Amino acid sequence: MYPLTLTAAMDLRQIIRSFPDWPKQGVIFRDIMPLLKNPQALSYTVNEIIKQWKSEEIDLIAGIESRGFIFGALIAQNMQKGFIAIRKEGKLPGETVKVNYTIEYGSATMEIQKDAVERGQRVLIVDDLLATGGTAKAAADLIERLGGVVVGFAFVVELLELKGREKLKGYKVTTLITY
Amino acid sequence: MYPLTLTAAMDLRQIIRSFPDWPKQGVIFRDIMPLLKNPQALSYTVNEIIKQWKSEEIDLIAGIESRGFIFGALIAQNMQKGFIAIRKEGKLPGETVKVNYTIEYGSATMEIQKDAVERGQRVLIVDDLLATGGTAKAAADLIERLGGVVVGFAFVVELLELKGREKLKGYKVTTLITY
Repeated sequence: MYPLTLTAAMDLRQIIRSFPDWPKQGVIFRDIMPLLKNPQALSYTVNEIIKQWKSEEIDLIAGIESRGFIFGALIAQNMQKGFIAIRKEGKLPGETVKVNYTIEYGSATMEIQKDAVERGQRVLIVDDLLATGGTAKAAADLIERLGGVVVGFAFVVELLELKGREKLKGYKVTTLITY
Repeated sequence: MYPLTLTAAMDLRQIIRSFPDWPKQGVIFRDIMPLLKNPQALSYTVNEIIKQWKSEEIDLIAGIESRGFIFGALIAQNMQKGFIAIRKEGKLPGETVKVNYTIEYGSATMEIQKDAVERGQRVLIVDDLLATGGTAKAAADLIERLGGVVVGFAFVVELLELKGREKLKGYKVTTLITY
């Protein structure tokens, strides 16, 4: 475990900043940058997520590009599990599988290397934010197409009104902060 | 420090894969994915980088999007320093500064939040790969425009023939593996 100077529950909501009407009118952007800049808060966040998952059998931690790389890598190293990357299209060499998914306007593609997951390996998918759940569901599709087992999803922040959990029904989903 | 099961020097070169002619003819792509998937090798990598920097006074670790986020976050947590993100354009809310820099064909823009660095704070810039040095130099420009002091650059891999060090002259630059 990382050094943890905080024993009581830390209110991460006081550390995360909110930007109304960014990137567009009507959206409140939750900015985790102050959390990343506070090493005690980041340690706390990682440790809390690990508590939520320590009873599960996990082989690999998958981080979703880009901010999922931060939390995914920290969780993976802390648990001493392998880290695998789910990337935007065109960034991974070798044989890959891709999945196309719809985003607000249009579509996006995510990609993973074919040998990232062996058949039957148990994978925890990590990202910073659960919004509509579209990206997370696409990540799970990639893992499952490789024969991997998605143990569940760990997020730091959940935007409740976007109902992302509905898209991830049947999976264990954990979040630390809800808005 | 992370758990470290390897006491002798580990040959990371045997773990990193090479893909000739990717993403285009004549380029050998060095793929760090197997390193990320090997928790002992990743711990070793992070610990070796920290050894190279532990005698320096450092306030913040800056990771360059996207793979620099992985190593930057691990180094920052391990050293219990704050992590700040240097991102591709358009992803950061609030007041930011941007820098435009040339890439092989055309140009790219990187961005940082104005309050990421306070005047006089000492910043170590982290990325996975030193190629031409253009991205790294642009990252340093951003830190310095905010009044920060760039302590140096830590990379995992260095492609010697691209002479990235020349672009970073005057800074301390460390790499673990050279090709």
